[in-house]
Amino acid sequence: MLKGNLLIGQSGGPTPVINASLAGVLSQAKKADFINKIYGMKQGISGLLNKEVIDLTNEPQDIIDKMLYTPASILGSCRHKLKTEDEYDKILSIFIENDIKYFVYIGGNDSMDTCYKIAQLAERKNYEMKVIGCPKTIDNDLPFTDHTPGFGSAAKFIALTTVETGRDQESMKTFEDIAIYEIMGRNAGWLTAASALLKKSELDAPHLIYLPEVTFDEDKFIEDVKRIYDKLGYVAISVSEGIVNKDGEIIGTENAEVDDFGHKIISTAIGPGNYLAQLVSKKLGLKARCNRPGIIQRSSAALASEIDVAEAFECGKKTIEYFAKGISGVMVTMDRTEGDEYLIEYGMKELGKVANVEHCVPKHFINKDKNFITDAFIRYCAPLIGKDLKEYARLTGKALLLK
Amino acid sequence: MLKGNLLIGQSGGPTPVINASLAGVLSQAKKADFINKIYGMKQGISGLLNKEVIDLTNEPQDIIDKMLYTPASILGSCRHKLKTEDEYDKILSIFIENDIKYFVYIGGNDSMDTCYKIAQLAERKNYEMKVIGCPKTIDNDLPFTDHTPGFGSAAKFIALTTVETGRDQESMKTFEDIAIYEIMGRNAGWLTAASALLKKSELDAPHLIYLPEVTFDEDKFIEDVKRIYDKLGYVAISVSEGIVNKDGEIIGTENAEVDDFGHKIISTAIGPGNYLAQLVSKKLGLKARCNRPGIIQRSSAALASEIDVAEAFECGKKTIEYFAKGISGVMVTMDRTEGDEYLIEYGMKELGKVANVEHCVPKHFINKDKNFITDAFIRYCAPLIGKDLKEYARLTGKALLLK
Repeated sequence: MLKGNLLIGQSGGPTPVINASLAGVLSQAKKADFINKIYGMKQGISGLLNKEVIDLTNEPQDIIDKMLYTPASILGSCRHKLKTEDEYDKILSIFIENDIKYFVYIGGNDSMDTCYKIAQLAERKNYEMKVIGCPKTIDNDLPFTDHTPGFGSAAKFIALTTVETGRDQESMKTFEDIAIYEIMGRNAGWLTAASALLKKSELDAPHLIYLPEVTFDEDKFIEDVKRIYDKLGYVAISVSEGIVNKDGEIIGTENAEVDDFGHKIISTAIGPGNYLAQLVSKKLGLKARCNRPGIIQRSSAALASEIDVAEAFECGKKTIEYFAKGISGVMVTMDRTEGDEYLIEYGMKELGKVANVEHCVPKHFINKDKNFITDAFIRYCAPLIGKDLKEYARLTGKALLLK
Repeated sequence: MLKGNLLIGQSGGPTPVINASLAGVLSQAKKADFINKIYGMKQGISGLLNKEVIDLTNEPQDIIDKMLYTPASILGSCRHKLKTEDEYDKILSIFIENDIKYFVYIGGNDSMDTCYKIAQLAERKNYEMKVIGCPKTIDNDLPFTDHTPGFGSAAKFIALTTVETGRDQESMKTFEDIAIYEIMGRNAGWLTAASALLKKSELDAPHLIYLPEVTFDEDKFIEDVKRIYDKLGYVAISVSEGIVNKDGEIIGTENAEVDDFGHKIISTAIGPGNYLAQLVSKKLGLKARCNRPGIIQRSSAALASEIDVAEAFECGKKTIEYFAKGISGVMVTMDRTEGDEYLIEYGMKELGKVANVEHCVPKHFINKDKNFITDAFIRYCAPLIGKDLKEYARLTGKALLLK
């Protein structure tokens, strides 16, 4: 059995449960006799390049317990893309000098690419080291897994916030016409679709949903908005931050900054939400406002889904269990079993197959009019946000005109 | 004992617990033999002018129970200011024709003004009708009450969101420098001050707080930001939407729309948050972003404070209990008893003394440097958000440089 030190990192945008995965890794690693020291990278791979780590070997159990409910990446995170030979050489020498034999990277799409490159580096240089990726992203866009840790909690926050602020808009409809919610997820519409999870009636928000998986048509959008406004007197609309026009350009992001991976940072531009609010005002003469919950949607640990917390912990634990079996070069996956009851079995997939593959919302989860989601999506997504949600009241009393 | 029908309305911006107050009114009114029919105004006084009501007389108990946790104004709300004699005449004739003998208005500052005018109208015209105001506002700016129903829940949301998104910013500090949170409250800084309630360490957000009770000085602000950035490498700043410069102008609201009461609608302008983010970028060359949680901060029933829910219900109940004693022309108040334990006694204050008086954050709750709040504020505010809050982890492991 390979013995040595373990190096763990967190990478990419945080989720409310990324520390639950770290807690899973630590709990299991402390029990593993093949692991000596446990080091956590400060700020992911970019901190590692500066040799900055935190010694997690003796982290007390009460801190590990609190990690289950602590938001954001407790080790620090980054969006650094490994590029130069120089960087690879530096990393390899750090591994060798510090007897790093096990490497866990908790992250999403781009981070699995980094993880894959680290695994390839070790292989290429004949350095014996086991590498496993632990999935994490609110975007739910990793392939070969039923869903990703982090998505359920963000979905719960978005579902609640949409219905709650929708009630506010409805109750204030004498001066609020159109509310547009711009929701995270980059090229995948999973989180935007989740905004409909708690909608119980035609009156509840959202009334329209636009995903990046469908080409966005401005004229059709204006028709949709007008039809619902004429009926209800207000409209709540969920749009993904990544919706694209027929030329493949993300709406409202002409001037966006670009990150290390070449992705537009949508939050640095006017964005599709504000762009569409202006469009509605201009075309329909209605008061339209964009709500951009921004980083709140990936930080709300107070509203974390209990199931998501438990699954994130388990995914972390599995990395060490797989190491114990001699496994390397994979990402932990979650497979949903067939049947009515929601049950997850843990599996794995080769990093090379996961890296840089985006898993988007499939066609059968999007309605024919391409402006809402289907019941099949609700059935898929509902178990992920948990059951501890209160049902909101609607009055049963008769509407009257007084004398 | 005066017998007749009860008319209830909800007014102004919603809170997560405004329906809990309605539930309190309904629960008690159903038991009161001096009340016949119970009518709820649709969209407050503006709906009443169209004679639109909902018959709440037989609203089932399970719906009333659910109201305790249902966000936004379930009856609908408005921001209508009574102005013309014509409007007053119309309202009086509606009261007479429909045997309205009891009138309850659940609302904040402006709504208590409306409530007072209704009471005066009845008196002036010798129409016997009892009028009581039930306090409600996330702004906490009503006078003669220790605090207002709605504030505790919004304070809990803001306190949680600030610390949670602050952790996100801290963990991502390789590319986020300055985060500015623009928080509601108009001319009162209570809710902005509440952003510090869960701060446990120097690292936690917020690092700076600016309230509308203090004249905002741009040069001093830039100095404050620079000092903390140099120390921590990131800064989280809470600013009230209503912070004013030395000329008494709200920062960043040149082009704001104005509501019926003559107040600037800050959300329709660039606002102080975005203005200051641009200022920081320009003066310090740092990446600065404004987070504007907007109506989420007054809608989050899922994060409502249990104490706030209970108090809002009790305030509603008190309106009917006071009617039973023949009381009229007052607003229900909450008085905190002396001593270490948090205890509330319910009282009342004449509507004429409450209407149009704003209760702002007093000096002893603001620090000497005018850029944070004092421990006295924490002691005042902490009981209002409840105790069901988890403590977040901080690592104890040693930071190391690898070989």
